Amino acid sequence: MGNSLKTDKIPKATVQRMAIYVQVLEELIARKQKVVSSDNLGRECDVNPSQIRKDLAYFGEFGVRGVGYYTQDLLQAISHFLGIDRSWNCALVGVGNLGRALLRHEQLRERGFIIIAAFDCDPFKIGEVVAGHEIVCTRRLKEKRIELKIDIGLIATPPDRAQRAANHLVEAGFKGIVNFAPTRIHVPEDVLVNYIDFTNHIISLAFHITHQKNTPPSATK
Amino acid sequence: MGNSLKTDKIPKATVQRMAIYVQVLEELIARKQKVVSSDNLGRECDVNPSQIRKDLAYFGEFGVRGVGYYTQDLLQAISHFLGIDRSWNCALVGVGNLGRALLRHEQLRERGFIIIAAFDCDPFKIGEVVAGHEIVCTRRLKEKRIELKIDIGLIATPPDRAQRAANHLVEAGFKGIVNFAPTRIHVPEDVLVNYIDFTNHIISLAFHITHQKNTPPSATK
Repeated sequence: MGNSLKTDKIPKATVQRMAIYVQVLEELIARKQKVVSSDNLGRECDVNPSQIRKDLAYFGEFGVRGVGYYTQDLLQAISHFLGIDRSWNCALVGVGNLGRALLRHEQLRERGFIIIAAFDCDPFKIGEVVAGHEIVCTRRLKEKRIELKIDIGLIATPPDRAQRAANHLVEAGFKGIVNFAPTRIHVPEDVLVNYIDFTNHIISLAFHITHQKNTPPSATK
Repeated sequence: MGNSLKTDKIPKATVQRMAIYVQVLEELIARKQKVVSSDNLGRECDVNPSQIRKDLAYFGEFGVRGVGYYTQDLLQAISHFLGIDRSWNCALVGVGNLGRALLRHEQLRERGFIIIAAFDCDPFKIGEVVAGHEIVCTRRLKEKRIELKIDIGLIATPPDRAQRAANHLVEAGFKGIVNFAPTRIHVPEDVLVNYIDFTNHIISLAFHITHQKNTPPSATK
């Protein structure tokens, strides 16, 4: 499984739904639920059951007719497929308010995303210890990437420094970047970037509130 | 414009791209760029130019043939469409590490999402002042929502307390929730929820790194 699939054909939205299935399956397993139907899984995930069946068909025949899916088996299969049955070493670039929250983010660590080193270019921060990590100068990214076998770079700088952070990560040989700074960054084609932009998500909510009714909620009781 | 559009037909992905266009247009305007072609806008946003033209067609005829789009006009139109030509009062529920980072998040504020009150149910936190906000007991959500005309609730609790926070927000009359806790929450149909789950975004990157090559990047030079 895994690499034998034509994974380049799998839409990003499918991958994001799979991450939700993992989350919900773990909660079901914690509640000792051994089997789940696509209807129930759909309800828990806010996903249409027919969409769930379609998504899970990437794995071949996984459901058992009249029974549903075995939660533990399905969780294992999806985790392997997503590449989260291993841990990933991450480097944080930018130790501001958000960076500090990421360094202490328990669920990231529990999910296997381990921030193993923290970088900043502010000389007043270098050497400071945050959540057990000594902040290191950003110039040492390459050396640390190789020494600590780091896979993923997380950018949590202010927006006007994000491109410079991205350049440092690219020069240091990183092939995967998650950008928390609310700005676009440009990187070579062989480097993958994911954006986590709070603002954009809240905008999308604001849009739906705006158009759902003609008065903003603050004007209603 | 705005409410006259059939906005319920607009896909979520389109809205998210529009938020990116706003970001990039603001950067272009800051660089004094008055006009942009869909090709250039596409390159800056990492979006296909034909997709951009399709997205912007929601506004009717906006582009000028042979010229492109006037950055300032386009920014205004999209901002109005998205509902971000106004400010939105937000309530934060859960003042942990992430909550503290949100309270200090400059770009949220600059974009018009103002965290105007912070709530927690931990008696040791209530009364503490963080970034100028006195933390208030979660039971006072309704009273504060009405008094301060709050539009949006942000959940930044640990995952096992997110549903309880959501229940409090719903009881207090909130119709829009952004959930930063890495878990699903269940709310009545008339309440909108957006999820901002770091973990899921990083999973999606891990997936693509896993399947892009057969060896994890930590094993390569």
